[in-house]
Amino acid sequence: MARTIGKAAITLALAGEEELPVLLNQVRQSGYQVVVGKVGSMDAEKIVAAVETAAKRSRLIKAVYQEEHSLYHAVIEAFHGVCRGQLELGSILRTVGLNFAVVRGPREAGPGAEGEWLAVALYGTIGAPIKGFEHEVVGLGINHL
Amino acid sequence: MARTIGKAAITLALAGEEELPVLLNQVRQSGYQVVVGKVGSMDAEKIVAAVETAAKRSRLIKAVYQEEHSLYHAVIEAFHGVCRGQLELGSILRTVGLNFAVVRGPREAGPGAEGEWLAVALYGTIGAPIKGFEHEVVGLGINHL
Amino acid sequence: MARTIGKAAITLALAGEEELPVLLNQVRQSGYQVVVGKVGSMDAEKIVAAVETAAKRSRLIKAVYQEEHSLYHAVIEAFHGVCRGQLELGSILRTVGLNFAVVRGPREAGPGAEGEWLAVALYGTIGAPIKGFEHEVVGLGINHL
Amino acid sequence: MARTIGKAAITLALAGEEELPVLLNQVRQSGYQVVVGKVGSMDAEKIVAAVETAAKRSRLIKAVYQEEHSLYHAVIEAFHGVCRGQLELGSILRTVGLNFAVVRGPREAGPGAEGEWLAVALYGTIGAPIKGFEHEVVGLGINHL
Amino acid sequence: MARTIGKAAITLALAGEEELPVLLNQVRQSGYQVVVGKVGSMDAEKIVAAVETAAKRSRLIKAVYQEEHSLYHAVIEAFHGVCRGQLELGSILRTVGLNFAVVRGPREAGPGAEGEWLAVALYGTIGAPIKGFEHEVVGLGINHL
Amino acid sequence: MARTIGKAAITLALAGEEELPVLLNQVRQSGYQVVVGKVGSMDAEKIVAAVETAAKRSRLIKAVYQEEHSLYHAVIEAFHGVCRGQLELGSILRTVGLNFAVVRGPREAGPGAEGEWLAVALYGTIGAPIKGFEHEVVGLGINHL
Repeated sequence: MARTIGKAAITLALAGEEELPVLLNQVRQSGYQVVVGKVGSMDAEKIVAAVETAAKRSRLIKAVYQEEHSLYHAVIEAFHGVCRGQLELGSILRTVGLNFAVVRGPREAGPGAEGEWLAVALYGTIGAPIKGFEHEVVGLGINHL
Repeated sequence: MARTIGKAAITLALAGEEELPVLLNQVRQSGYQVVVGKVGSMDAEKIVAAVETAAKRSRLIKAVYQEEHSLYHAVIEAFHGVCRGQLELGSILRTVGLNFAVVRGPREAGPGAEGEWLAVALYGTIGAPIKGFEHEVVGLGINHL
Repeated sequence: MARTIGKAAITLALAGEEELPVLLNQVRQSGYQVVVGKVGSMDAEKIVAAVETAAKRSRLIKAVYQEEHSLYHAVIEAFHGVCRGQLELGSILRTVGLNFAVVRGPREAGPGAEGEWLAVALYGTIGAPIKGFEHEVVGLGINHL
Repeated sequence: MARTIGKAAITLALAGEEELPVLLNQVRQSGYQVVVGKVGSMDAEKIVAAVETAAKRSRLIKAVYQEEHSLYHAVIEAFHGVCRGQLELGSILRTVGLNFAVVRGPREAGPGAEGEWLAVALYGTIGAPIKGFEHEVVGLGINHL
Repeated sequence: MARTIGKAAITLALAGEEELPVLLNQVRQSGYQVVVGKVGSMDAEKIVAAVETAAKRSRLIKAVYQEEHSLYHAVIEAFHGVCRGQLELGSILRTVGLNFAVVRGPREAGPGAEGEWLAVALYGTIGAPIKGFEHEVVGLGINHL
Repeated sequence: MARTIGKAAITLALAGEEELPVLLNQVRQSGYQVVVGKVGSMDAEKIVAAVETAAKRSRLIKAVYQEEHSLYHAVIEAFHGVCRGQLELGSILRTVGLNFAVVRGPREAGPGAEGEWLAVALYGTIGAPIKGFEHEVVGLGINHL
């Protein structure tokens, strides 16, 4: 069971549909707020928008700029792990299909936890726009709130 | 149970010491070769060296340039997820403590698997050289053999 | 009063509309040629184009490739300060509103000044495409002519 | 007079020694906390360390990881403007001499200001390790607290 | 006469139309498979697509993901030499006209050659979208098969 | 015979020792100034220093900052082609052995040539610090004087 914010986010992004409900429950019981979703695109901005929209709609972040700023940078940091060099998809002829998880809470679950943080995990595939010509990718971004 | 090379690598890198033996066994039974280890440093080249040395000693890769080239690029790609921008540690005053896992086999376990690939996963913490001033990071690099 | 080409460019880019005429006068009296303007966009190429067009129209640079090459690289270097990592705006879901100043002359004003240089300063805001969700940014690029 | 956190930081980093006391006073009267300093080096980590040490010693940031994390990223973002591409100094044979200013407070001075932010401004010269072979550089990083 | 895969690729990309048939013959007699072509665009993805299409149509690479993956990364590495920093063309207001050559075979021609590799060379001009405002660029990417 | 500054530089960097004297002669007869040399290192700054020292000693560039600035950026741009992503050698556990050529003159040889430019070409091998575990690399940087 994931006891840290980053493991919680990655575990959720990696989870298959059957495992997801149980894992979501565990992570929430550890005191974290969570939202998960899926997005596929050749446009990098759609990845950013999908994660931001999910986090806002679920009220995981408040509608103030400080929280939006924190989330934006966490998404961009996670996207670095997906892109491994240049934050570009279609413009260099590649496409992604990603699960995402956004987790809010302390860096480590349990009593004495200090401060609130955001973790954004991305997991899925990247590849040529040809079915089956793709491999897995992962990214994790963590930021203070 | 991880059925793909990337999930196998990340799951192993995330694993605590108690879970590791069971997971290693599962991944090997799915037909993958695996090596895991730990490395902490402010020098990026020590991260690269630790993963390469572990893979060579365990004979996960052969002592030919093609396989070393494949592994090198997989490590560097995983390191992008850890560094999220510039492949630098001590030179911009940060340090990492990482678990690594290198997995060799098909992209997906099971019959009909095509070709051999390498996955390198890195998981641990990055932060200031001050105890407790650190957060989690993850990276995954996948390359063909 | 700015006595160097870089300070002159930044001071002009930072200036409010009331201060601008006096500052322009001072910088010109120090022996510099200057053009200032504004541009807002989610498209990076529009930032480059706006600065280049202003510099050409005002004859701050001559219509030869050497001068255009010098200006192009100065703009791109200034844009690095604005983007802080990847030279992308809308493609990673952010937008800018910028003042720009281009200054031509010696690195330092006064007698004995050696050679001609270009300085491009950018100052304004970057942020989400939501009003008020933005913070300040600055960039400076300097190149020889 | 600078009424925004970024302008305040840049104006202080640009200031000569005679102007500095008056400007510091103005910025503090606008409700900002401020620390300024100087650092010259071919080692990027010394730039980061100098800014962090000054901010901690002057108690501009608290000794908790959230604030240190915010400052670290603000410094790195400002350093992008200085380096314009790769965060490297001596390793690509260049050196810097910089003034720095760290400012803490709202994005905009005045009543109704929302949230606390950090701005780090760097201004000085970059160049070859040969006297006089250098030009000006600027960087600004802004982060939420 | 080029005896290594990289020199073979660059020499072909540099060749004028009159020299090309003789050079192609020499490189093929050294045991290499080769395809050459031309592409001009402000869209980076068209460069990638042109090289990949030429390599597939000429059966220089097989229609399996491992070979496509190897070629993709070789093209992207060559493109780094062309772009020198950020893999962007039109989005930062520049355009390219390129010759390309893709070569398949051992790193060095002759008996005892170990393993198969791909080399992608790009040579041409980059510049403003104004006739004559452009200079030469070169890139080379080499990857194992 | 190379009629452009970039081709001249690359052709010289690619040349074997037997071909070099004839090629140097041809390039000089086309009206270009040239210096060539060799450098091997795991330290990026030694590559930059070797090229700069050769150009200064041979008086290919004058001892003024404008010319040194032009050369520095041309070397760094060429180095991007060698490094293909991050300007790092030993710090990510790789080493290079390079021929270099610096050429000064018009972009195109012949009457009517406009302006003076510098071209820096790098050609050699990059790889692990293990003999034979290396492949070819090329870089070209062109800048106005």
